[in-house]
Amino acid sequence: MDKTPEIIILRLGHRLPRDERMSTHVALVARAFGARRMVYSGQHDSGLEESVARLVGNWGGNFTVTYEKNFRKVIKEHKASGYVVCHLTMYGMPLVQKLEGIRKAERLLVVVGSEAVPGEVYQLADFNVSVTGQPHSEVAALAITLDRLMEGRELEAREFGGKIRIAPSERGKKVKRTG
Amino acid sequence: MDKTPEIIILRLGHRLPRDERMSTHVALVARAFGARRMVYSGQHDSGLEESVARLVGNWGGNFTVTYEKNFRKVIKEHKASGYVVCHLTMYGMPLVQKLEGIRKAERLLVVVGSEAVPGEVYQLADFNVSVTGQPHSEVAALAITLDRLMEGRELEAREFGGKIRIAPSERGKKVKRTG
Repeated sequence: MDKTPEIIILRLGHRLPRDERMSTHVALVARAFGARRMVYSGQHDSGLEESVARLVGNWGGNFTVTYEKNFRKVIKEHKASGYVVCHLTMYGMPLVQKLEGIRKAERLLVVVGSEAVPGEVYQLADFNVSVTGQPHSEVAALAITLDRLMEGRELEAREFGGKIRIAPSERGKKVKRTG
Repeated sequence: MDKTPEIIILRLGHRLPRDERMSTHVALVARAFGARRMVYSGQHDSGLEESVARLVGNWGGNFTVTYEKNFRKVIKEHKASGYVVCHLTMYGMPLVQKLEGIRKAERLLVVVGSEAVPGEVYQLADFNVSVTGQPHSEVAALAITLDRLMEGRELEAREFGGKIRIAPSERGKKVKRTG
């Protein structure tokens, strides 16, 4: 399969200050692994939006983060526009068993929980999938899922067209700056 | 290749309270993806050690977390005992280019930085590898690296023999408890 699905992330239940770094990492993983944008619910956090926007300004791409209080609305509106909803949860079916079905979608809404995801999310989702079935990290689960969805393409240094870019090196740090 | 390398994680520069959750997630990803144990440097944090020990008590396996103030000592001692040192850094060579070389190791020390990794680490490491060459998350970088090293085996619900285990389900939460 050669096409890449259009992927949007929905991060649930953001709390301050507890989730500041985790949600930032969710957003940066989403961007680095080829998602278009992230919507988050829970507490509004302009610091999260600004820090991601600043990074995108330097490192390129056009990834955005927006807030939406009502996560049900986000899920329902995306379903109505043809998005397949894939909820990452350690209680779900193994990702590898469902991957073929998920990859048939042209548009995907990947839902990333925090603590205490409402039961309704499991019902609204088209797929509830787990990465290992063990407790670990929503950041890791998202990275593994996007890597599999993209079939590893994002690992080969994709071009983001940013002002800052890294020249890979065996030892040390080589950074190129333009603009 | 059928053998699985023996993998130990070294988490650098743990700071309180900033890294509490990130380092916990690094440890849980290490466990879920088949590493043996994690050593961390930076600030000592008995809360980190206890929360991982509690989780291992419930969910199984024999993963441990220990503190070592001197990270150089950890790296040098492991090198002296035949470990290959693989440092995850966004400045490194793409993981996929180095994977074959790294997988030749029977024993691996995977070094996970935090902010401001001392330049010495780049010199001590046998491999400095990056996951995407973009800024994102050490938790994600570790998960992707271990997934590739294990060739995806950990995604098929490995048996940890814990008191708590999940019965994967299409919708909702099914947990089995024993002991």
